[in-house]
Amino acid sequence: MKQVAAYITKNQKRFIQDLNACIRIPSVSSQSKRKKEVKRCAEFLKKEFLKIGFHTAEIQPTKGHPVLFAEWKHPDPSKPTVLIYGHYDVQPEDPIDEWKTPPFEPTVRGNELFGRGVIDDKGQVYIHLKALEAHLKVNKELPLNVKFMVEGEEEIGSPNLEPYLKKYRKQFDADWMIISDTPMLKKGIPSICYGLRGLSYMEIEVKGPFQDVHSGQWGGILDNPANALIQIISKLKNDKGKVLIPGFYKDVKPLSAKEKKLLSSLPIKVSDYKKMVQVSKFLEENPAEFVRKMWAYPTLDVNGIVGGYTGEGAKTIIPESAKAKVSMRLVPNQDHNKIAKLFKDYVKKIAPKTVKVSVKDLHGGEPFYIHFDHPVFESAKKALKKGFGRNPVFIREGGSIPFVNSMEQMLNKPAILLGFGLPDENAHAPNEKLNLENYHKGMLSCAYFYEELSKLNVRKK
Amino acid sequence: MKQVAAYITKNQKRFIQDLNACIRIPSVSSQSKRKKEVKRCAEFLKKEFLKIGFHTAEIQPTKGHPVLFAEWKHPDPSKPTVLIYGHYDVQPEDPIDEWKTPPFEPTVRGNELFGRGVIDDKGQVYIHLKALEAHLKVNKELPLNVKFMVEGEEEIGSPNLEPYLKKYRKQFDADWMIISDTPMLKKGIPSICYGLRGLSYMEIEVKGPFQDVHSGQWGGILDNPANALIQIISKLKNDKGKVLIPGFYKDVKPLSAKEKKLLSSLPIKVSDYKKMVQVSKFLEENPAEFVRKMWAYPTLDVNGIVGGYTGEGAKTIIPESAKAKVSMRLVPNQDHNKIAKLFKDYVKKIAPKTVKVSVKDLHGGEPFYIHFDHPVFESAKKALKKGFGRNPVFIREGGSIPFVNSMEQMLNKPAILLGFGLPDENAHAPNEKLNLENYHKGMLSCAYFYEELSKLNVRKK
Repeated sequence: MKQVAAYITKNQKRFIQDLNACIRIPSVSSQSKRKKEVKRCAEFLKKEFLKIGFHTAEIQPTKGHPVLFAEWKHPDPSKPTVLIYGHYDVQPEDPIDEWKTPPFEPTVRGNELFGRGVIDDKGQVYIHLKALEAHLKVNKELPLNVKFMVEGEEEIGSPNLEPYLKKYRKQFDADWMIISDTPMLKKGIPSICYGLRGLSYMEIEVKGPFQDVHSGQWGGILDNPANALIQIISKLKNDKGKVLIPGFYKDVKPLSAKEKKLLSSLPIKVSDYKKMVQVSKFLEENPAEFVRKMWAYPTLDVNGIVGGYTGEGAKTIIPESAKAKVSMRLVPNQDHNKIAKLFKDYVKKIAPKTVKVSVKDLHGGEPFYIHFDHPVFESAKKALKKGFGRNPVFIREGGSIPFVNSMEQMLNKPAILLGFGLPDENAHAPNEKLNLENYHKGMLSCAYFYEELSKLNVRKK
Repeated sequence: MKQVAAYITKNQKRFIQDLNACIRIPSVSSQSKRKKEVKRCAEFLKKEFLKIGFHTAEIQPTKGHPVLFAEWKHPDPSKPTVLIYGHYDVQPEDPIDEWKTPPFEPTVRGNELFGRGVIDDKGQVYIHLKALEAHLKVNKELPLNVKFMVEGEEEIGSPNLEPYLKKYRKQFDADWMIISDTPMLKKGIPSICYGLRGLSYMEIEVKGPFQDVHSGQWGGILDNPANALIQIISKLKNDKGKVLIPGFYKDVKPLSAKEKKLLSSLPIKVSDYKKMVQVSKFLEENPAEFVRKMWAYPTLDVNGIVGGYTGEGAKTIIPESAKAKVSMRLVPNQDHNKIAKLFKDYVKKIAPKTVKVSVKDLHGGEPFYIHFDHPVFESAKKALKKGFGRNPVFIREGGSIPFVNSMEQMLNKPAILLGFGLPDENAHAPNEKLNLENYHKGMLSCAYFYEELSKLNVRKK
């Protein structure tokens, strides 16, 4: 392992250049004009896997963008198998004007690499790829069987992943799954994520008159769809942030005293978070409650609202309609289908009779939660401690990665969320960046982790 | 007068053609690309006034589009003077696809003329112009002094009217003012409008994080500007439509028993109004209260709201900001500056401390109310009865024409709002139309009205 680590350290600069070649491919999955580039990126990665010595690397089609599936098979069949997940598609680069350097021309400034996809998720794919290269170059083999799946549709919600997983079910058998697509708690603190929130994403539309009408002629007698929508939404949540939908909290599993203690012990400073979003006051400022509200309690937020005249100046109309997107983050054991139904029923119930109200369930996903007393987490801790020089922390995430739950249920094996991003690295924003220290230490950690995993006893198929 | 009426009847067809020539000029005041067309329309009208025998017709500049001011001076200086107001600018034609025939190619279908500006307000300008032509052609003179002002910026809120009126103050001296820019109660019922609502138009902006941020990462701890804006607006008005801003109703002058009786006696059917806007239920369905809420009580309406992601599908963000336009229609004796201040103070008071809230006063205007016991209203009644064959009704309007108040205060003489539009003639919408029976009967009424006015005793300057 010393030589593997030395190889990683020696090749630091080249590893950045290798990643840069991948960043230069604008594999934006949401834009049909970039379809060819997305495919080109999968083909590029296929070559990269074969180049470092993987036995197979296959571009597997879906109804949308393809998945790259690569495999290295150990000569000793008793060795365990790890499945690694990443994605090669990226977010659109808009607003392009706010980038300091072009999004698809990766640039190092200080100890950071800037470019679209450097952290989400190409950089994290390369952390594994280069750790694997180090093992293969130094030892001519990997310490265990490795399956590596790189998806091309994560940024559009993995719409074709479920049928794909079903179709290729057999190839995924593994003892554990590593997913590297989450952030660390903060700089210098390696982190393992053991919980994600679920999601229920709804849309409410309120319709009134057949077209926009004059607010002088009709104001006072005709109900206003924008006002009606506002009244409805104002009744979904009170001023303290408590969701008012009957039954919303019914299935929420309370936090154990043990977990509360763990969360409170994390080195979290509320003021650091204020700086990140540049606000002077949060909804919650008590540090213990802050962490719980950020990760472990459900939420309700308006993601967008529009109705009537929104240009410059004044226009005196009652709009014909108004629309809002409202989503809820869910926690164990809330069920997104059940929550969507409660939401619909409640909105219909409180909707005024003077307008027409419709509610759509746009999409949803289950929360994820794993008890990290499984021995594999001990191995992960050891590896991260070697890579970063300090013990990792166990954290949860406020966001949702719906497929984690699907994959865990399919495999029925532990999923280890091992992320190397930082919370302020602009994953979906302009000037996305990657801390190069994390890039390096992440690689070391992964190399150690494969080694640790190979030592674990697993029941063989 | 018989011959004047006969002339109007004989020339019905030509009067439509003459109006059509004016409709063909796309004098859209809000579009800078139409600036030349707006000017061309003023020049066209100048020729029309001189052609029928006006002594002067002058294009008077403002900071924006010019005003056309035309005058016919009676040889007998003891004759009274009437000032007529109209406007030659029109609304934009968008959405162009919804027009059955092109907006600037006037077309007769059945007993209606279709085209942008046919009712608002070129058609009403022509009702006066042709009634004046009839007098001049038949009698070689008018029965009184006539001043005719045709504005070019009414559809953009007459931003340059006040300084213009001040600059040309002297030329406006008159005994009464006729404004023809309001609708009739309904088809067949000539109407005189004695009240308009005022307006206070505000904009609220709520700002949160420095940019749109991830709703999973930040939901639960970071206040959401869209939710905050919704909470604020929901507290401006209750579910029954009562405005909750402290002091809002303080200056409202209660309706007299006499006026309540008058309003209740109008031939108004709530169901007719439902058909017009195609809704099944109004906020108020009691007929007496319906009329009062439509015209005589103040309102508060959201004219537009926007924040966050409003495209197709889902985007999981907490928006950096959200904005709404909220306007209030005011009634005697509410003061729009006072109301704007109450609004601002209240919004600031209820605004959560977790977001930044700013409130702008976009514009305002005073309500208008005239006691129609002045003798000039008797003359108007007589004229309308002769023109339409039935007694007119006295109505109010829910809308606002801020300059009416300015002009009335400047002149300190009664303003008679004599409108010939119908409520469903799509004044600001596609397929704007003019009922040709009203075009004709309106002309007859105006011709009779000038005659009646000339008989009134006025104190001479």
